[in-house]
Amino acid sequence: MSIVVQAFPRVRSEVIDGLARAGVATVHEAQGRKGCLHSYMRPIFVGAQVAGSAVTISAPPGDNWMLHVAIEQLQPGDLLVLAPTSPCDNGYFGDLLATSAAARGCRGLIIDAGVRDVRDLTAMRFPVWSKAISAQGTVKETLGSVNVPIVCAGQLIEAGDVIVADDDGVVVVKQTEAETVLTAANSRLAAEDVKRSKLAAGVLGLDLYNMRPALKDKGLIYV
Amino acid sequence: MSIVVQAFPRVRSEVIDGLARAGVATVHEAQGRKGCLHSYMRPIFVGAQVAGSAVTISAPPGDNWMLHVAIEQLQPGDLLVLAPTSPCDNGYFGDLLATSAAARGCRGLIIDAGVRDVRDLTAMRFPVWSKAISAQGTVKETLGSVNVPIVCAGQLIEAGDVIVADDDGVVVVKQTEAETVLTAANSRLAAEDVKRSKLAAGVLGLDLYNMRPALKDKGLIYV
Amino acid sequence: MSIVVQAFPRVRSEVIDGLARAGVATVHEAQGRKGCLHSYMRPIFVGAQVAGSAVTISAPPGDNWMLHVAIEQLQPGDLLVLAPTSPCDNGYFGDLLATSAAARGCRGLIIDAGVRDVRDLTAMRFPVWSKAISAQGTVKETLGSVNVPIVCAGQLIEAGDVIVADDDGVVVVKQTEAETVLTAANSRLAAEDVKRSKLAAGVLGLDLYNMRPALKDKGLIYV
Amino acid sequence: MSIVVQAFPRVRSEVIDGLARAGVATVHEAQGRKGCLHSYMRPIFVGAQVAGSAVTISAPPGDNWMLHVAIEQLQPGDLLVLAPTSPCDNGYFGDLLATSAAARGCRGLIIDAGVRDVRDLTAMRFPVWSKAISAQGTVKETLGSVNVPIVCAGQLIEAGDVIVADDDGVVVVKQTEAETVLTAANSRLAAEDVKRSKLAAGVLGLDLYNMRPALKDKGLIYV
Amino acid sequence: MSIVVQAFPRVRSEVIDGLARAGVATVHEAQGRKGCLHSYMRPIFVGAQVAGSAVTISAPPGDNWMLHVAIEQLQPGDLLVLAPTSPCDNGYFGDLLATSAAARGCRGLIIDAGVRDVRDLTAMRFPVWSKAISAQGTVKETLGSVNVPIVCAGQLIEAGDVIVADDDGVVVVKQTEAETVLTAANSRLAAEDVKRSKLAAGVLGLDLYNMRPALKDKGLIYV
Amino acid sequence: MSIVVQAFPRVRSEVIDGLARAGVATVHEAQGRKGCLHSYMRPIFVGAQVAGSAVTISAPPGDNWMLHVAIEQLQPGDLLVLAPTSPCDNGYFGDLLATSAAARGCRGLIIDAGVRDVRDLTAMRFPVWSKAISAQGTVKETLGSVNVPIVCAGQLIEAGDVIVADDDGVVVVKQTEAETVLTAANSRLAAEDVKRSKLAAGVLGLDLYNMRPALKDKGLIYV
Repeated sequence: MSIVVQAFPRVRSEVIDGLARAGVATVHEAQGRKGCLHSYMRPIFVGAQVAGSAVTISAPPGDNWMLHVAIEQLQPGDLLVLAPTSPCDNGYFGDLLATSAAARGCRGLIIDAGVRDVRDLTAMRFPVWSKAISAQGTVKETLGSVNVPIVCAGQLIEAGDVIVADDDGVVVVKQTEAETVLTAANSRLAAEDVKRSKLAAGVLGLDLYNMRPALKDKGLIYV
Repeated sequence: MSIVVQAFPRVRSEVIDGLARAGVATVHEAQGRKGCLHSYMRPIFVGAQVAGSAVTISAPPGDNWMLHVAIEQLQPGDLLVLAPTSPCDNGYFGDLLATSAAARGCRGLIIDAGVRDVRDLTAMRFPVWSKAISAQGTVKETLGSVNVPIVCAGQLIEAGDVIVADDDGVVVVKQTEAETVLTAANSRLAAEDVKRSKLAAGVLGLDLYNMRPALKDKGLIYV
Repeated sequence: MSIVVQAFPRVRSEVIDGLARAGVATVHEAQGRKGCLHSYMRPIFVGAQVAGSAVTISAPPGDNWMLHVAIEQLQPGDLLVLAPTSPCDNGYFGDLLATSAAARGCRGLIIDAGVRDVRDLTAMRFPVWSKAISAQGTVKETLGSVNVPIVCAGQLIEAGDVIVADDDGVVVVKQTEAETVLTAANSRLAAEDVKRSKLAAGVLGLDLYNMRPALKDKGLIYV
Repeated sequence: MSIVVQAFPRVRSEVIDGLARAGVATVHEAQGRKGCLHSYMRPIFVGAQVAGSAVTISAPPGDNWMLHVAIEQLQPGDLLVLAPTSPCDNGYFGDLLATSAAARGCRGLIIDAGVRDVRDLTAMRFPVWSKAISAQGTVKETLGSVNVPIVCAGQLIEAGDVIVADDDGVVVVKQTEAETVLTAANSRLAAEDVKRSKLAAGVLGLDLYNMRPALKDKGLIYV
Repeated sequence: MSIVVQAFPRVRSEVIDGLARAGVATVHEAQGRKGCLHSYMRPIFVGAQVAGSAVTISAPPGDNWMLHVAIEQLQPGDLLVLAPTSPCDNGYFGDLLATSAAARGCRGLIIDAGVRDVRDLTAMRFPVWSKAISAQGTVKETLGSVNVPIVCAGQLIEAGDVIVADDDGVVVVKQTEAETVLTAANSRLAAEDVKRSKLAAGVLGLDLYNMRPALKDKGLIYV
Repeated sequence: MSIVVQAFPRVRSEVIDGLARAGVATVHEAQGRKGCLHSYMRPIFVGAQVAGSAVTISAPPGDNWMLHVAIEQLQPGDLLVLAPTSPCDNGYFGDLLATSAAARGCRGLIIDAGVRDVRDLTAMRFPVWSKAISAQGTVKETLGSVNVPIVCAGQLIEAGDVIVADDDGVVVVKQTEAETVLTAANSRLAAEDVKRSKLAAGVLGLDLYNMRPALKDKGLIYV
């Protein structure tokens, strides 16, 4: 059965923007070292750092029809997230779809498959994290679903979950945990500033984190 | 048997240059969504967009002798295309070979193996699409062939076929189809300009392509 | 048994710096086409070209505790080299560790695993060659060893070996061979300058290297 | 936070056994072509065909401590399902753990990581579907969770979901859908028997499924 | 354009059967060490050794419609050979299609994608060489072509070429070369029998093939 | 420089045979969870369990000349271990080489590349652990070395080291540690027998290994 879920709650934009500022590595740590998509998900250009509410797409291999359906569901601040129902590297998305998505305020695309027109997407500064770059196109023959739970690059993602993406990759924050995670992320950022100064001044992590007794207890031997 | 085919027809340069301007994704669509090499073929630097007549090389694993033989066969506007006879990531090609190829008017290299000296190649703006970057060198002990049909990254390529390559990857156009494909590609480009304007103005693909009836027929349900 | 070897000899800095200038491909050829790490080891940003004395780390999968231990062992001009005891893509290293390593004069990191905070590392110009980029963090629970022999991306590396890394990848030079290799590398560089000029002027490699007789002997046929 | 969920509902054993008899391919089709784990999940020996209620394990890379915790939660007819929190090929499970699991009525293991002692496991006829076979052992240092939702080889699995596994791989059936899926699977099996007889007698699928008109409509040309 | 080529010449059955007896490794050597498909093509059960005339299928990713079309084109002694137009692991083929193909005298399937129902196929002794085993099914929505040239697992295959497959993998013999290759293969087999006896008796390959002078010339040093 | 080292010490045969009986997983644990080759090294048939002294081969990609050289160096009880100097899947070894090696008392082959004639090798019961099975042959053009230290599938192996291989994969034991490791392995085997009986009787690992206090200390929560 192929369905399009049209309504779902979204996280407040201040929270989403705060998570974008914190970045993927910090957010991942702040929520207990979970939520990272597989490391093969890479940005098509460096330097983008975004967050948004997930509009999810479950699509057949080699068929991008549902992307057109999903774009109608976008609200400003959303991110498209596509998982094929079986592994596929085809280029599902290019500059025309990006133009359409951008016109609706979309902040980017996370796709466990391929993308193309990357020169144009880069010129538009439309950020994409993908498994592949491939000019191989797709058909529009078979239905999928929009805004149903999907597994994308190893993580469960539901419509309205917050996706954070930067040069380190992509992390998902469950909608219900977004505010808590932001608080924890901001605390980490503040603490890291202090640590960074000390480390830059030559203090060792061994001392800063008081690791020497634990290392000795475990049996580390210096020769 | 190892042979070097010295003469083969080439496509007119205006056609080749037109295909270069159209780019890989458009050319691939214009010829019926065929001809793309595997997506693991990536450019060593971004921004190059070229086309040329294929000078093909079938080379043993870890042996780049035939590259020297092939360079003598180059005419201005040609592209080198190398496939090893079994999978190999070695660096077959570096800045000295590139200097020699460039001196003969070569527009780039497509290689289903490795390449090295990428900093120098980038400085020279000699474009390469390869499976790997590897400093591991090769020997010169075993013969291969030049300008015979090869399978490179999943596509059959014959000497004189047109190769188009850009940031999306690489596509091959059969020599006999090049003019027809260019005409189709140019038509697509014109049509895409119109579509892009409408999509940028907020028209949905669902409406622009009149997809709603077909989606309904297939049974898509909005909830 | 987990140990930290605190003292080992290092190669003279002029030799190390000479090897850095020669670059990976030349050094690899100069030592008999050996020593290259697997080609999946890629730089996180382009343009870095470094050499240093290896401080080696054998670490458990998903555990970066030993990096803190290793940083204390760094001397100016050293490079960190980490191999996990079984394959792992986690992000073992980020901007805080890089700050600490840089404060001790470390020239970079070679890691057969993942790294994160790549935007920050790029801004700091702290070079890293890694198998993966991943925000997925690690724990600090299990010991490993420092400055023991390790196998990193297919090569044996001992503390004090010279590591050379650039856009082509990474090569290891055994400590005892470093001076000899530098001499051979410098000879190659000089010889390449001469060849490059000839090739740029249109002389063919077939003639420059006198390959035609050998090709004929092996049975190459021109048609 | 690391938790062990001790109570969850299970599907009736007649339903589970019916799904086992239907097999993976039929069950997958019967639920709308969904639920298959990635095809890299392979059995350690051929011929096993089982189904059971999932007892799920989320484990750190290279750490099998939670398997011991999970075994206490097993009831007869359960299957263990383990996903590491980041990719790992280590051998988490061998003959001692299998002996313990079998003593509690466990029907097998699905593990998106490695397993070892495969000769002993085969002799015991304890079925395992895994990503790897590896003698590389694990530690017991870091907590994970038991009976929480996990993503294993690309599929979301919750405690009490039904897992079906055979030589074709592994499929998950959501607990709430198990009875419906069994009914559909049994209908498919009956229908397939009829088709099989006709096809064996030489009737073509083109005629049996009345495909000729649709092929003609789509434009298939016979030459 | 999607076409079905209905008529093409086939090699005489005695030649095909002779190539089957020679096996993949010998045939590959006999034709100049060429024609092997990639080594990821593995049999679903061990012990099959077959040859047949290729009936080729170019199929979209995740769509097995053309298999039904191809089966009508089979003659006794043919082998089905399928290549998807972009990489795909789906299970295109199972026991019903095998029943139908076997009813028409088909000797097996070579597929650069996935297959399922492997327990049934094994029981039927219907041999398959595939890239994957996967229960994930396909749709019947998009056309492909039958008996056009395809690239399958790295080799160009045309309808009527001879395919030889055994536990070592798969090799293609061009139709026009089949008789010559068989003669060469039979010569090799005879010569190998003589060599095998000598080697079994303890004669070294170094002496049997008179390698010592060449090794010395190349500079091999015994220490 | 290509060399053949003709003399090196070997471990006593009783020790080697004891390690064979202990098997890969136990030996690996007994020496501190080290020494396992990458898990992609798989046996060509199940059920073999062997150990022997390594005769090492460093070979160029696609060139098996050094295998002939190495066979002359074999003594009864030795195992051949081959690593290519860059990644290669070619079939370096088949039934003729196996016949020759077996005639000299060789116990098997460990090869980080491909092998062929697997049906014959299986019939001979000549065990091989390899990265690939491939009919693609090799040439005899370029020298390598025999009995020099090599890195094979991620582990350093020196001539005379003991290799243990079974269905779980391959492990290397340093020559100097072989006796100590055997003692530790035998202790483990004895201890495992006791544990197996208790686990089979239903005692939980949580109690047998007294894990409950540590789990509680780390913070595991039962709900």
